[in-house]
Amino acid sequence: MYYEGDMMTTNVAETMAKTHKAISIAEFFEKNKHLLGYENLQKSLLTVVREGVDNSLDACEEARILPDVYVELQKGTTGDNKFKVIIEDNGPGIVKANIPKIFGKLLYGSKFHRLRQSRGQQGIGISAAVLYGQLTTGKSAKIYSRINDGKTHIYELHVDIQTNEPSVVGEDTVYGSGHGTRIELNVKGRYVKGKQSIYEYIQETAIMNPFAKIVFVDPEGEKFEFPRAVEELPREPREIKPHASGIEFGTLLRMMKNSKARIISGFLATEFSRISSEKAKELCVLANIDPKVSTTSLTRDEAEALHDQMQKAKLQNPPMDCLSPITAKPIEEGLKKELAPEFVTAVSRSANVYSGNPFLVEVGIAYGGNLDQDGSVHLMRYANKVPLLYEQSACAITKSVIQTDWRRYKLSQSGGSLPVGPVAITIHFASVWVPYTSEGKEAIASYPVIIKEIKLAIQEAARRMGVYLSRKRRANEVEERKAIFRRYVGELAGALHGLTGKDEEKIATQMSELIEEKLKTMVLVEEPEDSGHDAEDLKDVDNEIPDEDNGEKEDGE
Amino acid sequence: MYYEGDMMTTNVAETMAKTHKAISIAEFFEKNKHLLGYENLQKSLLTVVREGVDNSLDACEEARILPDVYVELQKGTTGDNKFKVIIEDNGPGIVKANIPKIFGKLLYGSKFHRLRQSRGQQGIGISAAVLYGQLTTGKSAKIYSRINDGKTHIYELHVDIQTNEPSVVGEDTVYGSGHGTRIELNVKGRYVKGKQSIYEYIQETAIMNPFAKIVFVDPEGEKFEFPRAVEELPREPREIKPHASGIEFGTLLRMMKNSKARIISGFLATEFSRISSEKAKELCVLANIDPKVSTTSLTRDEAEALHDQMQKAKLQNPPMDCLSPITAKPIEEGLKKELAPEFVTAVSRSANVYSGNPFLVEVGIAYGGNLDQDGSVHLMRYANKVPLLYEQSACAITKSVIQTDWRRYKLSQSGGSLPVGPVAITIHFASVWVPYTSEGKEAIASYPVIIKEIKLAIQEAARRMGVYLSRKRRANEVEERKAIFRRYVGELAGALHGLTGKDEEKIATQMSELIEEKLKTMVLVEEPEDSGHDAEDLKDVDNEIPDEDNGEKEDGE
Repeated sequence: MYYEGDMMTTNVAETMAKTHKAISIAEFFEKNKHLLGYENLQKSLLTVVREGVDNSLDACEEARILPDVYVELQKGTTGDNKFKVIIEDNGPGIVKANIPKIFGKLLYGSKFHRLRQSRGQQGIGISAAVLYGQLTTGKSAKIYSRINDGKTHIYELHVDIQTNEPSVVGEDTVYGSGHGTRIELNVKGRYVKGKQSIYEYIQETAIMNPFAKIVFVDPEGEKFEFPRAVEELPREPREIKPHASGIEFGTLLRMMKNSKARIISGFLATEFSRISSEKAKELCVLANIDPKVSTTSLTRDEAEALHDQMQKAKLQNPPMDCLSPITAKPIEEGLKKELAPEFVTAVSRSANVYSGNPFLVEVGIAYGGNLDQDGSVHLMRYANKVPLLYEQSACAITKSVIQTDWRRYKLSQSGGSLPVGPVAITIHFASVWVPYTSEGKEAIASYPVIIKEIKLAIQEAARRMGVYLSRKRRANEVEERKAIFRRYVGELAGALHGLTGKDEEKIATQMSELIEEKLKTMVLVEEPEDSGHDAEDLKDVDNEIPDEDNGEKEDGE
Repeated sequence: MYYEGDMMTTNVAETMAKTHKAISIAEFFEKNKHLLGYENLQKSLLTVVREGVDNSLDACEEARILPDVYVELQKGTTGDNKFKVIIEDNGPGIVKANIPKIFGKLLYGSKFHRLRQSRGQQGIGISAAVLYGQLTTGKSAKIYSRINDGKTHIYELHVDIQTNEPSVVGEDTVYGSGHGTRIELNVKGRYVKGKQSIYEYIQETAIMNPFAKIVFVDPEGEKFEFPRAVEELPREPREIKPHASGIEFGTLLRMMKNSKARIISGFLATEFSRISSEKAKELCVLANIDPKVSTTSLTRDEAEALHDQMQKAKLQNPPMDCLSPITAKPIEEGLKKELAPEFVTAVSRSANVYSGNPFLVEVGIAYGGNLDQDGSVHLMRYANKVPLLYEQSACAITKSVIQTDWRRYKLSQSGGSLPVGPVAITIHFASVWVPYTSEGKEAIASYPVIIKEIKLAIQEAARRMGVYLSRKRRANEVEERKAIFRRYVGELAGALHGLTGKDEEKIATQMSELIEEKLKTMVLVEEPEDSGHDAEDLKDVDNEIPDEDNGEKEDGE
């Protein structure tokens, strides 16, 4: 029955060899669609909308156009779990030749190979939405693109699953002015309201992208408008070169092979950020290499020595203009516009670095107004301006909020939970490379330096809210006391009139004035700010042990 | 500053077009290596070993060879976080022409396109290990393959990251008999002992693959042998056709297009499991289609109607010979061999189906012996015979164990925790397609039917352990009573001798015999089995709401 020793013939290996073949990335994701956000009908519909809107906003920002984005969901004609999703923008449009690959090929795009902040990073999102649509409804996607050349290019296409190449089933050109892109997708999904809904996603997007106008028409035909709150785009992020810290040895070898630089010091100075010609020569000398040696003639041992020196070197942090923060003012405007709170504040921190990647954190806090009085605060998490709606508990943002002592800032909180109160908190993590815990792109990994930055931003914003709430509480107390005095002014004045014979009216007026005067000064007394505690709060941050599953990524080595 | 309306020129779109390009899957995973298990140095080293051992065991089983697997870790010469990993097997070997692609191209393999149980399923594992090695150490992988044709083929190769094609740097053929594959990889990693270690992985593999012999040499040169416990391989799984239930419409269209069958009823009968010619005709009639119509001339509406009928049809479950259970006896042997417990039992359930995929559950329980008296039970999770060492709490197996009431089976347990006691539990989930919660392949998604099957298997095995523990407890009680009686036999006999004048020795003997006789029957009285409760335990299983993040996959629609 079993082949023992030499009894096995070569036939077995040869038979098995025949079954081997290549798997296209489209086939792979067709079978593993849950890895890309297509886990269930509700989330799948959201993912389709999200991929479209993210692409629209990225395209507009890159072309420096204030975005107008239109999202419409139509009920399908067959079955109540079919939808037609339409997403249209006023972006630059896409040149004809590139349309098929952008929408019909997985792993194709402009964002993967460059280091600068953008919503998309993989070149999978929108073509995966096309793939999901064709898989669940058998229908191709329809794309309209105008690049201001007086034409509209129309494509009907889907992904050829076996080759991962676009399969164009229809093509047309009509005349039409303007610029922008429109995509129509037929997909299976489930439309819900409330938590983790498309409405929630769009509203949260509107809050953190206040420079965008978004219109959403739901499957019932109801139209929701999210107007622009600010008329200026965030600053344009600049592409940066990789930073030497944390670069893998294999990557260094590959860069060396592909570089146009001929000598090793030139290679270092041109291919990495924060390595000057001087610094490059210094690194070569430390590694015992002639700085003028050709990149191709470096031995393996020399390259390893150089890699060691690059890791040990104290290099300046990478330049931060690769990031595009929203900044405090627009965050406040976004919160005001959508939530109409009684108090709002926002903090935009300066940048820091994890594993060689620049990042920064921005926090907005809104209090009162229409916000829910009962229950936990409404936490809105963002990565590169995109709302994260799933996997809340696995995210570094949530952990940072929970680990903050909110009682210090006048909110109630029980251990290990979100604070309670009529508060909305937006936390924005911006980076050239967001360290998601999975392809689902729903939670940020808990690097200690990331947690620390988020906490510092929270504390700064929360302290301001705390001051506001203290003042408000004291103002309320004063008002209460005034009310008590006022209640007895008439009675007292009458009694004093009886005792002294003075004019009752006059006594009452004088007494009222006295009370107002007295209590006016009361409300101006400030409670001291308890900033002394914040250092305490961060004491352990540097020693924090990352989580087993998502925190230790990259290992920092 | 911003382009408004027609002010934007086509240049913007054209400039942006130039930045678009294809991304190879190797580049994608280089940048996202954490998605494949390369999250930190400890886990990365484990992942490399795991990919190699899984491949070896799959190859041996497929060729029907009792596996001999040799794993060696050598400390690297440069730096204490570099290792040389060697994995060698007595499998069928790989024919020369296929070696480069199997080890040097991601998404290449034999397991992706067929429906039958195997350890690997994606064709990514071993080439990703090669990629990880070259990335972290800059070194190529070395592969030796013998297919019993008197030669050993040797390749040195790595993955060309930009093309995802193998890059061969060395090639040699030497003479040598036998068959098998050996791979040598240089990788960055961290070697640990204890929990989530390579030793733990290999020991757990040895337990659930009792037909394999594994030798492991650790970086200190210490050699551990895990001998074979049974001399027979599990049954060979047969490839099955897809089941019609849960098939996506887009997939149906694609199958129709690619099928060799010319008429629609023939297509249904040949491409799906459990659709006979009769049933195929019946489905066509229900969908208002002529069973003899050509697959290519079917309209979209007709195809949709057919898809509907296929989903509604009551079809037999798919055939179960695509699964390869270990079965109860070998599981018990594996536990005995590695843990030397005082009691062992195992259950191998018959197969069930989730989303059209056959699966089955096997549970082994070992009690006492060298097992740790204090602390939680030692839970070992397996998917297709591979131990799962990470993400324990996210896994359907862990949830099922926690939701079981172990106090019924004589173990202590506090709510929401694993039970406590000197117990090892192995739970094996076998399927043609394991629904992992992520590419990390460390946790199984919580489909209700999966949870239900695991619980039933646990209950059956745990009940036997409960009976054993009850008996043991009663036996202990009997022994205690005997001891008490014995202590007083002499005294009593003396007293009776004084009273009756009979021979003291004789009285003592008779009394002892009486006690033994009396207590022997005591120990044979069985406590009734509390099987009545088990139904209660499963009452809510069918209504169970799957978890937000991993349970709702596929949605069952």
